Amino acid sequence: MKILIVGLGLIGGSYCKAITSYTDHEVYGFNRNPKVIDAAVECGCIKRGADISEFGMFDMVIVCLHPDPTEKFMRDNMDKFKKGCILTDVCGIKGQMTVEMTKLAADYGVNYVGTHPMAGKEHFGFDFSDGSLFIGANFIVTPLEETDKNSVLIVEKLARDMGFGKIVETTPFDHDSIIAYTSQLAHVVSSAYVKSPTMQKELGFSAGSFKDMTRVATMNETMWTSLFMSNRDCLVFEIDELIKHLTEYRNAIAENDSDTLEKLIRDGRLLKEENLKHRTKECE
Amino acid sequence: MKILIVGLGLIGGSYCKAITSYTDHEVYGFNRNPKVIDAAVECGCIKRGADISEFGMFDMVIVCLHPDPTEKFMRDNMDKFKKGCILTDVCGIKGQMTVEMTKLAADYGVNYVGTHPMAGKEHFGFDFSDGSLFIGANFIVTPLEETDKNSVLIVEKLARDMGFGKIVETTPFDHDSIIAYTSQLAHVVSSAYVKSPTMQKELGFSAGSFKDMTRVATMNETMWTSLFMSNRDCLVFEIDELIKHLTEYRNAIAENDSDTLEKLIRDGRLLKEENLKHRTKECE
Repeated sequence: MKILIVGLGLIGGSYCKAITSYTDHEVYGFNRNPKVIDAAVECGCIKRGADISEFGMFDMVIVCLHPDPTEKFMRDNMDKFKKGCILTDVCGIKGQMTVEMTKLAADYGVNYVGTHPMAGKEHFGFDFSDGSLFIGANFIVTPLEETDKNSVLIVEKLARDMGFGKIVETTPFDHDSIIAYTSQLAHVVSSAYVKSPTMQKELGFSAGSFKDMTRVATMNETMWTSLFMSNRDCLVFEIDELIKHLTEYRNAIAENDSDTLEKLIRDGRLLKEENLKHRTKECE
Repeated sequence: MKILIVGLGLIGGSYCKAITSYTDHEVYGFNRNPKVIDAAVECGCIKRGADISEFGMFDMVIVCLHPDPTEKFMRDNMDKFKKGCILTDVCGIKGQMTVEMTKLAADYGVNYVGTHPMAGKEHFGFDFSDGSLFIGANFIVTPLEETDKNSVLIVEKLARDMGFGKIVETTPFDHDSIIAYTSQLAHVVSSAYVKSPTMQKELGFSAGSFKDMTRVATMNETMWTSLFMSNRDCLVFEIDELIKHLTEYRNAIAENDSDTLEKLIRDGRLLKEENLKHRTKECE
């Protein structure tokens, strides 16, 4: 296939590198800043940059922009893609956009397939991109009933070739409600965690748990504001859940109620151990 | 020195291995379960088990039990240690115990020095012990004014030999207030995080941030209940701080207030970046 990657940031750049390294597909890049295209050509992960007038030559177009620009790019260019080509994106929110893009693409004879590669780093930009970023990572595909089945298979095959581990199909709305918990809430917590006044004294006093808890606090505020706002209800539900549970621990500690606190911690341990057991089973 | 390690769990076992691997000191073990002593002798990390009647032969006694048993062990055996020997422990809470043990030890001619090695794993027991656990980790020492200066130097020299990175001296009470944030709060969050009903659906939908957020939820409930309760005021303060900040994000999202949310995320990013800058400087 001739594949166009739109937006060569951390994820787009890593797509270029993974596809070029692990498959025989021809990869082209489209990026606002031409210097990034030069760097990508230089490192050999794309054949060359593509002009907007060439959008009709690709078998697959993978949009790797932030959520709002992703939707805008697809709306603005839907008339330029080849009939029967596959259009996909990597946005962390699928819901309504998936429904609308599937319909719009169909109007132009284009096959839209929404995906969410569950990989990332606490840094961004092409300079941090990495062809091995996806090895063993989860890959979520969110087809609708009317989505072209063959296109889904091609997208999933490409993901496997790029090194992804588990490939999961789910509905766009289930995706959003689960991701609110597994990814978005973690980012909210990390960002809130660093705001204690005690943060100023932590040097020399921390171990792995502090680093883990605050790693993703460096997230890009433009992208994540957009992701959070597109998933408002699910994310507010998860923050409320967490605050409710934190309050249980808080009250048990404040009231010196060791029995309740011990039970709270034990319940958490059992839930996590159960979770780890399922993970181990999956790897067998 | 002849060193006695009391309690060969994750930390005690790792102490035996690190001291035996990286120094010429002679290490002896004292443990409730004789099978653990056999395993430690077998793997060569202690010379042999010591009997309670031999406590007087050691230059240094390092108590690696949970917080309550640590204090009990020291109270019960203070009369058996050699005059002028160094008594130390690895408890995650120092405050009042440090004051009391320093005084009690002095009454018996023993030099007590409180320490807190900032290293651990989400597992426990001798089987998980690891001589390289402390390499590059922070080591906190909490001497009082009346603490024997030479004993502090000897304890710190041993820590450096065991591979610890940064060695920090602070007061027992400052230790407790900072540790409430850097370690205890992280454990509370991790334990609370796994309690969302969405946890049951996370397989296939998570990436690094979820794993980081929930890693230490497997903590031992007996030990951590005791640690949390010994640091009630500091920990309640930190949980309240976090809930306050989480609520700011929650409200900005619920009210669709992008400007406020973006500012909250940006402020978090800047705090974390500032923190990372200091870390890098430290390593230069």
